[in-house]
Amino acid sequence: MRVNFERLRRDLETLGAIGRTPEGGVSRPSWSDADVAARRWLLARIEAAGMEPRVDPAGNILARWQPGSPVVLVGSHLDSVPNGGILDGALGVLAGLECLRRIKEAGTQLRYPLELVTFTDEEGAFGGFFGSYAFTGTLRPEAIPAIVDSSGQRIVDAMARHGLDALQAPMAARDPRGIRAYVELHIEQGPVLESRRVPIGVVEAVVGIHRFGITFRGRADHAGTTPMPDRKDAFLGAAELAMRGHDLVRSQGTPASRMTVGIVRVKPGVANIVPAEAWLTYELREQSRETLQRLAEVSRGLAAEIARSRGLEVAVETILDIDPVPMSSLVMDAVTHAAGTLGLQSLRMPAMAGHDAQVLGRVAAAGMIFVPSKDGRSHSPLEFTADEDLERGANILLQTLLHLAAA
Amino acid sequence: MRVNFERLRRDLETLGAIGRTPEGGVSRPSWSDADVAARRWLLARIEAAGMEPRVDPAGNILARWQPGSPVVLVGSHLDSVPNGGILDGALGVLAGLECLRRIKEAGTQLRYPLELVTFTDEEGAFGGFFGSYAFTGTLRPEAIPAIVDSSGQRIVDAMARHGLDALQAPMAARDPRGIRAYVELHIEQGPVLESRRVPIGVVEAVVGIHRFGITFRGRADHAGTTPMPDRKDAFLGAAELAMRGHDLVRSQGTPASRMTVGIVRVKPGVANIVPAEAWLTYELREQSRETLQRLAEVSRGLAAEIARSRGLEVAVETILDIDPVPMSSLVMDAVTHAAGTLGLQSLRMPAMAGHDAQVLGRVAAAGMIFVPSKDGRSHSPLEFTADEDLERGANILLQTLLHLAAA
Repeated sequence: MRVNFERLRRDLETLGAIGRTPEGGVSRPSWSDADVAARRWLLARIEAAGMEPRVDPAGNILARWQPGSPVVLVGSHLDSVPNGGILDGALGVLAGLECLRRIKEAGTQLRYPLELVTFTDEEGAFGGFFGSYAFTGTLRPEAIPAIVDSSGQRIVDAMARHGLDALQAPMAARDPRGIRAYVELHIEQGPVLESRRVPIGVVEAVVGIHRFGITFRGRADHAGTTPMPDRKDAFLGAAELAMRGHDLVRSQGTPASRMTVGIVRVKPGVANIVPAEAWLTYELREQSRETLQRLAEVSRGLAAEIARSRGLEVAVETILDIDPVPMSSLVMDAVTHAAGTLGLQSLRMPAMAGHDAQVLGRVAAAGMIFVPSKDGRSHSPLEFTADEDLERGANILLQTLLHLAAA
Repeated sequence: MRVNFERLRRDLETLGAIGRTPEGGVSRPSWSDADVAARRWLLARIEAAGMEPRVDPAGNILARWQPGSPVVLVGSHLDSVPNGGILDGALGVLAGLECLRRIKEAGTQLRYPLELVTFTDEEGAFGGFFGSYAFTGTLRPEAIPAIVDSSGQRIVDAMARHGLDALQAPMAARDPRGIRAYVELHIEQGPVLESRRVPIGVVEAVVGIHRFGITFRGRADHAGTTPMPDRKDAFLGAAELAMRGHDLVRSQGTPASRMTVGIVRVKPGVANIVPAEAWLTYELREQSRETLQRLAEVSRGLAAEIARSRGLEVAVETILDIDPVPMSSLVMDAVTHAAGTLGLQSLRMPAMAGHDAQVLGRVAAAGMIFVPSKDGRSHSPLEFTADEDLERGANILLQTLLHLAAA
C-alpha cells in the first residue's frame, strides 16, 4: 500500500496558502484568524474523507478510523511561527490524514484503531504545547488564566471567541492506557539527513534544554581615565563565558550537544563607559540527561571562575530545565522495519527542537520520523523538502502505522 | 603668595548647590536651568571681585585682569554631566577666579594680562566643546543649526531663550596670536595620582580617541537543530574581538592605552536563535598618535581575521577619530617649576578624558594641572578630592599663572 502523494501534495499546498506571507512563508500563530481558518479547512477535509472530526476541550482536532482501544495516534500541529514554513507541523497532520484515508479506502482491518490528532499551540504563541499538555493530563488548570500571547491576549479570551472554554482544557486529558503509540512525521529542521544523504531519520530522543540567564556585575568606569588592570568589565565576563562555554560543549559534549548565547544586554550601554552589567541567555541542549546535567554544572562553574578571575559578581538563574525524552523502541523499531520494507536507508538521530512527541513521550510510547530539510532551514519561508522526500516520509509513516496497528 | 582657600572652598560649595541631585551630585547640562543659574552666579562673583564679566557670542564667560596682549588664559567649564560631581570643571573655573582675585588684591603687576574663561558645553549635552571650538575658530557655522541635545532641542533655541544667537557663536573666535597660554586645573578623574601618592599631575598630552562601530553578520539558525560546526554565530565574533582586542591593547599598547567595548547589540536577540548580527562599539585611547593608529590598524585586521575564521561578514566603521593633543612645554615647565617652588612632587601623565585644553592646544600653548581623584571616581556623585589636594592644586595654578604672566 502507498499513499496518494498527489492528494497529499495538494493538501499541503492548500493549507500552505492559509496565512501565506509576502515572502512565501506562512503565519499561523495559534488562534490567529489564519490558524482558525486552517482548523476549519482541516475539519472539512476530514469530513470529505468520510470521517467525523472532533474538537476536544483543548481545541485539539481528532479523527478516528475504527473504534476500540488502545489507539495508535498519528499527528502533529497546524499552527506556525510568524513567517514560518509550510511543512513544519502541517506535514505530520496531513500525512497522517492521508494515511487514514488510504487505509480506509483499502478497507484494511486493523487490530488497533488509528486516530489523527492535531495539537493546539505547539509553536508557542501562548507558551507552547497547550494541546499536548492538556491531552496528556499535564496542563495545570490554575496556570490557564495567566496564559497570554506576546500582545497580552489571554488564551481564555482567544478560545472563547471560537466557542471554547480554555479553563475546561484539562478535560481533554486521555488515559495513557488508551494510547498504544504516538507517531509524528516531521521535517528535520536541521542539516543532518541532507548532508548524509539519508532519506529517513528515526528519532531516538527529543533533546533536553537547560537555559540559564546569567548576569555579570562589575563597575561602570570611565573608558578613558580607568587603567585596563583596574577595570571590572562585566561584558568581558560575558564574552569569555560565551567563548569558553562554546569550546566546552564542542570538546566535552556529544555531536548532538548545543550551546547558544542568543540574547546579550549590556548596561549602561554607553560607548565611553566600561560596562557595569551584562546579562546573557546561555542555552544547552543534549539528548543524554547525564551529559546535559554535567554540561550545565561545568558551565555554572565556568561562570563562577570567570567572575572570580575578573573581579565580577555573577548570578546564574535557570530559566528553562527540560529533561530529554527518549522515544519508544516500539515506534523506533516499527519505523526501522518500515524503512527496510521500502528499501530506504534510515538514521537514528535526536530531535534537537521541541515537538509534541516529547510531551506524549512522557506518558506513552512515542516516536518521530524525520525527512530531510534543505540546508537545514526551518522557521523560515526558506524551509523546503523535495517532493520525493515528502513522499518517502509519508509512505514510511503509512507502513509504520500499519505495523503498529496490525501487530 | 597663596590663594584664600576658605573663599575658594565656599565658592565650590555654593556652586555645587546649584543643580544639586538627591544623591549629592550635580546636574548642570549646558543651557539647563541649573547651568543658567550657575552662569548668573558666576557673573555676580566676578563683579563682586571688582572685575567686569563678559559673555562672548558662544556663551563663554570671560573676565580680565589688566589690559594688553597676549593673555594668559585660565579656566574650564561650569556645565556637568547628569548627576556628576561638583569639582569636574567647576574647580578650574573657581580656582582661576580665586587666582585673579588674589593677584588683584595683592596689586601684583604682570607683564602679560590674565583672563578667566568658562567654556560653554564642555560635557556634551549639545555634542561637547561648543564654547572652545568657537573660541578657537574651529566651530563650523553650517553645523550649528543641526546641533541638538538628546531630547532634540536645538542649541539655537536653547541659547535664544537666554538672549544669545547661536549662529553668531563663531564670532567668539580669538586670534591665537593673542593667546600666550591656556592653563586648566582639573581633577584627574582616574586613580593614578592617588595610587602613586603624588599631589600634582603635569599633563603632557590629552589622549586621542579612535572609536569604531563594528558589525559582524552571520546567519540566524535554530539553536537546537543547527550543529555547532555549521553555525555562523555573529555574537561569537563580537565576543572574540572584545577579548582579543583587550589582550592586544594590554600587550602592545602603553600603560596609557585603553580599549573599551561599551555598547553591544545582538539580533534577532532570541534565546533559541543563533545571533545573525552583532554590533559593538570598540574604542581605543592613546597619547601617542603613532601607537593609536597602529592599534586601530591591528584591531581592524583582527576583526577581519575573526570574521574570516568564523565564516562571518564584518563591517568596520569609524565613529570618532580624534588625534592626541600634546600639551605645551611652556605650560608644563611652568607647572613643574611651580611644584618645585612649593616643594610638591609632580608626575607627568596623559589626560585620558576629553578637556577644553585639547581644543585650545591645537591652536595655542595649552596645559593642564591634575589633582588626585579619590578612587578615580568621576562623572558621579562619588567624585571627591580632599581639601588639602584642592588647596595644593589652586596654589600650583596661582604660581603657574604668575610664572607665565611675569616671564
